[in-house]
Amino acid sequence: MKVRVLISFKDSVLDPQGQTVKNALHSLGYNFVKDVRQGKVFELELEGISEEEAKKIIPEISDKVLANPIIEKFTWEILQ
Amino acid sequence: MKVRVLISFKDSVLDPQGQTVKNALHSLGYNFVKDVRQGKVFELELEGISEEEAKKIIPEISDKVLANPIIEKFTWEILQ
Repeated sequence: MKVRVLISFKDSVLDPQGQTVKNALHSLGYNFVKDVRQGKVFELELEGISEEEAKKIIPEISDKVLANPIIEKFTWEILQ
Repeated sequence: MKVRVLISFKDSVLDPQGQTVKNALHSLGYNFVKDVRQGKVFELELEGISEEEAKKIIPEISDKVLANPIIEKFTWEILQ
């Protein structure tokens, strides 16, 4: 089973990397880019657990290991 | 218009961060995790261009600015 976890800063947290990318895009003439937020993505390959178990364990893993819940939020989906 | 660009290492490129996360998960008892690949995600807010233009420009931006095409690949989708 393949799972994708997307992690991004909470909306209230400044994202200097995203700002830098936005500025770089503007300096190249891409002025239609109004905002950029950067985050992380993890693609996990799981074996030997059911989808039901995965639905319980993925948020647990995301919260404990992949994300920093103080400043980050996460979403996840099962890809296949 | 909101666009998400996902960037990950090409399959042939080693991903030491992903390996480290996998090892951390194993040490916590999550042995059903067979592989982890880590990547980046950019969420762009675009204004003043059509969906047609976006479909041409997003791959261009991804290739020129967001990803390093020598070692990384990207996928993208329009969110709204």
